[in-house]
Amino acid sequence: MKADLLITNAAELATPLGHPEFKPAEFLILHDAAVAAFRGQIVWVGPSAEVKKNVQLETPAQFVDAAGKTVTPGFVDCHTHPIFFGAREDEFEMRIAGKSYEEIARAGGGIRSTVRKVRKASKEELIAAALPRLDRFLALGTTTIEAKSGYGLSLADEIKLLEVIRELDALHPLDLVPTFLGAHEIPDEYRHNKSAYVDLVIEEMIPAVRERGLAEFCDIFCESQVFDAADSRKILTAARDAGFALKIHAEQLTRTGGSALAAELGAISADHLENTTPDDWEKMKASNVAPVLLPGAVFFLGKERYAPGRQMLDFGLPVAVATDFNPGSCMSESMPMMLTLSCLKLRLTPAEALTAATYHGALAIQRGNLLGTVEVGKKADLVIWDAPNHKHLPYHFGINLADRVIKNGKVVYEKPHE
Amino acid sequence: MKADLLITNAAELATPLGHPEFKPAEFLILHDAAVAAFRGQIVWVGPSAEVKKNVQLETPAQFVDAAGKTVTPGFVDCHTHPIFFGAREDEFEMRIAGKSYEEIARAGGGIRSTVRKVRKASKEELIAAALPRLDRFLALGTTTIEAKSGYGLSLADEIKLLEVIRELDALHPLDLVPTFLGAHEIPDEYRHNKSAYVDLVIEEMIPAVRERGLAEFCDIFCESQVFDAADSRKILTAARDAGFALKIHAEQLTRTGGSALAAELGAISADHLENTTPDDWEKMKASNVAPVLLPGAVFFLGKERYAPGRQMLDFGLPVAVATDFNPGSCMSESMPMMLTLSCLKLRLTPAEALTAATYHGALAIQRGNLLGTVEVGKKADLVIWDAPNHKHLPYHFGINLADRVIKNGKVVYEKPHE
Repeated sequence: MKADLLITNAAELATPLGHPEFKPAEFLILHDAAVAAFRGQIVWVGPSAEVKKNVQLETPAQFVDAAGKTVTPGFVDCHTHPIFFGAREDEFEMRIAGKSYEEIARAGGGIRSTVRKVRKASKEELIAAALPRLDRFLALGTTTIEAKSGYGLSLADEIKLLEVIRELDALHPLDLVPTFLGAHEIPDEYRHNKSAYVDLVIEEMIPAVRERGLAEFCDIFCESQVFDAADSRKILTAARDAGFALKIHAEQLTRTGGSALAAELGAISADHLENTTPDDWEKMKASNVAPVLLPGAVFFLGKERYAPGRQMLDFGLPVAVATDFNPGSCMSESMPMMLTLSCLKLRLTPAEALTAATYHGALAIQRGNLLGTVEVGKKADLVIWDAPNHKHLPYHFGINLADRVIKNGKVVYEKPHE
Repeated sequence: MKADLLITNAAELATPLGHPEFKPAEFLILHDAAVAAFRGQIVWVGPSAEVKKNVQLETPAQFVDAAGKTVTPGFVDCHTHPIFFGAREDEFEMRIAGKSYEEIARAGGGIRSTVRKVRKASKEELIAAALPRLDRFLALGTTTIEAKSGYGLSLADEIKLLEVIRELDALHPLDLVPTFLGAHEIPDEYRHNKSAYVDLVIEEMIPAVRERGLAEFCDIFCESQVFDAADSRKILTAARDAGFALKIHAEQLTRTGGSALAAELGAISADHLENTTPDDWEKMKASNVAPVLLPGAVFFLGKERYAPGRQMLDFGLPVAVATDFNPGSCMSESMPMMLTLSCLKLRLTPAEALTAATYHGALAIQRGNLLGTVEVGKKADLVIWDAPNHKHLPYHFGINLADRVIKNGKVVYEKPHE
């Protein structure tokens, strides 16, 4: 087997195992393990002792001795809002003083305050603001993110955001999977005319985004104060008919029927789900709708009601976990932090949390065949952790244990050594 | 004013202000600010525009342009258990599966499992295991930690740990303030003879540690299942008589009278305090006992009952926050993470959380006159954050925003730049 990247002597290699069915993945742990890749693809996985007879290193090649370290797939962060301008630390302080997210939003803060700043920002400014965020994602072990628009809320500004996502994907080692989220909030100028904004999304934005090939998914914030189930049905149906794969922000603050709608329309994922019931899970399971849980947002909003991750997993759903990175309700690029929250608050084991953050995340962006496991044929997106086993990732929290991050078979982040 | 370190153009300089009374500190924010230090001590603080007429830079000097960045005091982490061998990630997994910390401890896990490993480890092994932890503290903006023994629980092993703390303090830029915690747990061999262990601590350990000058503080884990209030009174009284300043782990799992005892004996701090009442606060206030809150341990143990930080601060107590870094109940060296938890769970504002993590922490280790503020005469322990203001420290969570860490007037950590 020819290889141009070889990692050997890993104390532990920990990975979910891909499979064609819609159900939770099995998990594999190998000790003293090795991984070889060629031209960005994994070509061999096995015991370090068997490398010699199986792998022929090309010249030049990258070689990493991972003695004492743990190898996992790169994180697939399947729900992020990374393109924004400015931050919202003042709202954070208001929430601590007792104001709710809903109150702040009603007072004209929240998403719309970011929209005002994004509309004034140039593409260059948005790119410059986003690049350090992408660096942080990568340094913390994430190799692919889904990236939503949704802070433009006009045809021109939504296209600007999606073009920024495309440029960043080309500029930066991190892969960005683009999602059109024109229905993220009702913009100021349509505040008293929601139906006209729904029409604008359907009649102008969806066709324009599709024509330019700027997004793979169409998403919507389905919530009683924003777009209700009827609005969501209209917009998502139009998006599906235009050729988008679908996502939906569902049952975050209240149960509004978003997950049932996701099942009905064949959405790829339904996200948040703090207020779902087993009825909803049954529908999602029957329609292969991936559940994406976002415990960082619950934590950051100071709420206590987390999605029932343990029960959904036991129910047979391939539960994914993502950051929901955004300036209002979850200002964190850290998937390791989400692993800790998944264990403590969703009651997932470390292996289940890692699966949720890799392979199940890949399923939620239609890339289960390409990403999220350390298996032959998968993209060589790997992380070498300065930890003796995968359990340290959620256990040793609030810090970064990544030693090296490998994207497409190339080392793109290396921890500074003194 | 002569200086050998100059930081200018800080978008924000954010610091508590020291004062001689036992009460919460005022907080100062300066924009476009500068700080100068000479031989490790702060000599001037003011607007960048006034540097020229006030500061004469020596040769050689360190110069930092902090444009767009925030300057704060280094964190004073006043409660840590950083010297241990091995980790306890398996217990973390057991807790997720529903076992309580108390159950794990009763089953022979918990602190005693670390004690078994520490007893077998050499000083060299303990130092090698601790150094990367100290690097992480420093990289996350902490410039001084209080460091407890307590994983030896025999005369020889407690002295070994305290000698390791002394050696690490000499080896590493981080300052370590040593605390003797022989009464951390009842060791296996005294499991059914607690009073004999209490006698051993009083008659052998306290005099031996004092004679060698190995610790400034004596601390105890006062808890119904471990050392009750009567044991604590005996041990702390002996420690006080031997010349130690006192600390106490009080009212963490149950209300056992530890904070009232702290007040009675004139302890410097009482730590944890999840189960205190205003009666206890009144006594602590009257006796200048600093309250040290450890929200990371509540979070990591999956509990919901945080100490009433907001109320204690409003009551007039100078509330400190620390990591409680240890392998069982809080595996994190991150003070920024503790700021986030302080805001979300203790309801402190970002400025109050920063004060709790710096100046109030310094008060809790008797160093309010030396550390914890950016004021003339204080030690030049400073952090330059890659953030426009101090609110970003709790707001942007799970990551490390430190750009440079300065200890004793020297840059000892610098964020890697590509």
